[in-house]
Order: sequence, then structure tokens, then C-alpha cells
Amino acid sequence: MISRSEVEGRLREEAATVEKWLSGCLKRRGAPEGLLAAMEYSLMAGGKRIRPVLFLNVVRMLVSDNWAQRLLPFAGAIECIHTYSLIHDDLPAMDNADLRRGRASCHKRFDEATAILAGDGLLAEAVAFMGSVETLGVPSEWVLRAVICVAEAAGTVGMVGGQFLDMQYTDGRNVDIASLAAMHAMKTGALLRAPCVAGALLSGADETPLEAMAFYGSALGAAFQITDDILDVTGKESVMGKPVGNDAVLNKTTYVSLLGVEASRALAEQRVQEAINALAGFSGPESDMLRGLAAYCINRIS
Amino acid sequence: MISRSEVEGRLREEAATVEKWLSGCLKRRGAPEGLLAAMEYSLMAGGKRIRPVLFLNVVRMLVSDNWAQRLLPFAGAIECIHTYSLIHDDLPAMDNADLRRGRASCHKRFDEATAILAGDGLLAEAVAFMGSVETLGVPSEWVLRAVICVAEAAGTVGMVGGQFLDMQYTDGRNVDIASLAAMHAMKTGALLRAPCVAGALLSGADETPLEAMAFYGSALGAAFQITDDILDVTGKESVMGKPVGNDAVLNKTTYVSLLGVEASRALAEQRVQEAINALAGFSGPESDMLRGLAAYCINRIS
Repeated sequence: MISRSEVEGRLREEAATVEKWLSGCLKRRGAPEGLLAAMEYSLMAGGKRIRPVLFLNVVRMLVSDNWAQRLLPFAGAIECIHTYSLIHDDLPAMDNADLRRGRASCHKRFDEATAILAGDGLLAEAVAFMGSVETLGVPSEWVLRAVICVAEAAGTVGMVGGQFLDMQYTDGRNVDIASLAAMHAMKTGALLRAPCVAGALLSGADETPLEAMAFYGSALGAAFQITDDILDVTGKESVMGKPVGNDAVLNKTTYVSLLGVEASRALAEQRVQEAINALAGFSGPESDMLRGLAAYCINRIS
Repeated sequence: MISRSEVEGRLREEAATVEKWLSGCLKRRGAPEGLLAAMEYSLMAGGKRIRPVLFLNVVRMLVSDNWAQRLLPFAGAIECIHTYSLIHDDLPAMDNADLRRGRASCHKRFDEATAILAGDGLLAEAVAFMGSVETLGVPSEWVLRAVICVAEAAGTVGMVGGQFLDMQYTDGRNVDIASLAAMHAMKTGALLRAPCVAGALLSGADETPLEAMAFYGSALGAAFQITDDILDVTGKESVMGKPVGNDAVLNKTTYVSLLGVEASRALAEQRVQEAINALAGFSGPESDMLRGLAAYCINRIS
């Protein structure tokens, strides 16, 4: 078993590789200057880069490090989609958040119109980036299936649909734990599951590893979100880079509001165990890293 | 040569086929109820459906009607992307438009957050719809290249980038005709060109017809936008379904503000002729329809 500090070290290292690709990807496309600035501002604002790192580790485990290197644009594209969702979620009409990762959110630093278009642009460019790996020698059937997988995770039965439901689950509305879990599986879970499934698809995996990766990603996504709810109560604003205690102010139904901190933590640990169980058929350093990443999701402090 | 009324009749007929597909496509996906309502409200608000009809006619001309029928989900997806762009363009932070196609715009009928998410959802679903034609027996390389073509047209070097520039070209800013044309080629032109190019890609066309379709689509797109500028001055609000005279109020640089109505009309006619010239190598009823559609772009009254 890989230690927590080793996981964090490798995560930082792999995040740096992803960021190197991200830092040049938009400039190469030739967006208008002011729009490019807004997109890069949010895309390069830091963050754990956990989605692309998950993707790369799945590919590395199922094929090789070389193959993962080749698929770097696909990994980066997933982070572009994550960034787009943060920009739109922060908008005044949505969560109305002034801060993101310790800096002004995109619409605060630029303006609302620019932030809307920066998000729109990141989603569209991400599709082109994902598709582009075909020119690097990845079979087009694999690429197409992986693109569809990510698009569905980003869409109305995934992230966008989940954000819509989340906005309805405020103001003390009666929401039970099953509805809450279903909403989070869409809002956060889908785009944590998708990198794992897309990684398997782009490794030419057959049904058994494909299902294992889907299961791993879903369980990890659930653990991640429960931890988010906990951190909104127990986290430090200076570490989180955004205000804490927001959920209570908005009277939001969360795992903590329904179960309390301790039972929420126990549930998150159970999900991590399920994620680790899904990896039972795999061995080697890459599968250890995936186990470590699952544990990291609930041990993180931001 | 096909008559103007024949073009309009076929356009209505083919638009109805597209609408039949559009009317069920989102329900089948399973979006949350309120979000689905907003997406369908805007998607089914009418409109000429010129983008999917262009796409279907290109495919029909290069392959067959059967092949075009098979590609209907791809045609519909392009309309989803067009609808998403209208929803976001109408937002208060963007063009702040209360009316669209004679009805309340999406954020007016629902709310701003719902409108943002409805647009986001339409773009993501469109990608999944486009990809889905592979399961209908269309070669995955063709599908992937066509998806990338449309994503690029929707992105920062296309529609989103053009909308960004357009918002900077207001308030009497000094913009010359070349910059204006370049902006419109991105904002409106790209998503009129893309259905023509994607249609050729999904017909397995080689370089010569591919270039012809790109040229045809670009020229048609330019003619279309010049006509939009003219209609904002000469059109009737009751026919347009939205207020006219907006450009002057916003002190926007347009073809009309730079060249006047008559010279703008002459320029649009020149572009239509270029579009028709691009079809010189093609014959038969489908190429006639494409010639007719180019002419329709400047003869339309809304």
C-alpha cells in the first residue's frame, strides 16, 4: 500500500504534467485575446487536477505509461470541462460566488458575459481536444466512445442536470438521502466516474475492467462529495480558497445536515472501501496509486 | 433552377422532419423535469432549421436520401447547438433580449440559472447525439472528424469567439469592414459552414467536394449575416419575432452602418453568387435545392 504522502507527491507531480499541457492548449487554438485571458485565468488557477490524474492512472494501469502520455490532450480536456463547470456555477444567477481557489471568480475578475463565454468556449474546445487524440494513433472507435462518455457525464443526466437539481435542493426543501445521493452522483459523481470509464475505453478494455473502472469511479465520486459537504463545515477558508459554512447559510440539504459529521465520515469511508474493492483484480504500482487516490478523496483538507 | 416558393416549401417540409426528431430527443435522455422544459421550450420555438436542412441536403447530394435519413440525429444536434447559442446570447449579461421568435426568451420564461444550464445541457447533449450516429453504421472516423468540425465551429475560433468580438464591437467602436466580416465569419458563418463540411465528411467525400462544401457554406454564411444586418433596419418586428432597430440603439457597427442598405444588399448578392459558383461541379435536384437555399438566405423576410 502506498503512503498518503506518496499519493500526494505523485498527485502533485502528475498535476504538473497536466498543467504544462493545459498552459499552452488554448493559445494554440487562437481565441480572441480577452476571451483567451479569461479562459486561461480560470484554467490555470490551480486545483488538484484529480480528474485528469485519475484518467491517466487508469490508462497507465490498463496499458502503459507511453499510452497515457499519448492521451494527455484527452486528460487535459476533462479538466477544461471541470473548469467550465466551475465558472458557470460561480455566476451570480447560480451560486453567486465571488471567490474560487483563493482568487476572484471569473465573472468577478472579468465580467459576466466574458465568464459565460469562457465557460462555453472551454466546453467546445474540450470536445475538439478529446477528438484530436485520433490523429495521434488512437483508434477512432475508442475515441468516439470516450467522447460520448464524457459528453454524457457533462450533460443533463450528469453534471448539468445535477447542478439544476442542486439549485432546487436549497431553502430547506425536504430532500431525503437517496435523492441527495442521486443528485450528487449526477453533479459531481459523473465527472469523476467519466475519466475512469473513458480511460478504460481508450485502453481498449473489455467488459470486466470497464465495469470495474465504472464502479471504482462512482464510489470515489460519492466519497469525494460527502467529503466536500464535511469540509464545508470543518474546513478552513484559508486552506479551501473559498468561504466555508456556505451550505448552512443557504439552508442546503447536505450529507452533514441529514446525517451529522460522524455518520457522514463513516459513509465516505465505506464508499472508499467500495472503490478499493473494485480494484481487487488489479495489481502493480498504478493500481496502488488508484487505491491511494480513493483514500486521498476523504483525507484531503481542501 | 428551383423556384423561390419551391425552396420555401421544401425547407418547411424538411424542417418538419427535423422537428419531429428534435421533439423527442431530449425526453429520451432523461433530464430533470424543469430543465427539460426549458430546453424543449427553446428548441421547439420554431425557426427556419436552416442548419440541419443544409446538412441533410449536402448528404443527399453527395450520397443518397437514405444516408441523410440515417444521419438525422447529427442534423438535429446542430440545431441543438444553434439553440444553445441563442439562449446564452439572449441572457441579461449578453444581448439582454426579452423576446425570441415572438415569445419570451428562455431566461424570461424560466429564470437565468435555468437558461444558462439549458444552454450548457443542449451543447453537451448535442455532442452525444452527434456521436450516436456511429451506432447506426456510420464509420467512426467520419463521425469523429465531423464532431470535431462542429465543435471547432462552436468554439473560440468560431461562434463563441465571434460572440465575444461582437460584444466588443458596440458603442461606436471603430471597426472596419474586414474586421466586421471576420467577426461574422466566426459568430454566424462558422455554424452555417460546419453543417456543409460535416455533411461532406459524413458522406466520405474526398478533398474536392469537401472544399466545395466549405466554400459554399462560408459564402452562404456571409450572405446570411449581411441580410441579418439589413433586416434589422428594414424588417418588421411582427415578422421577425424580435425587436428591430436594435443595432442602431446599441450603436453597433454593421454592414448597413458601414456601407448603407443598397451596397450591403449588393455585397450579399455577390456572396450568394459565390456560393452558387461553388456548386458548379454538381447537378441534380439536391444541388438545385442548395442553390435555392443560398438565394433564400438573402430573400428571406425573417
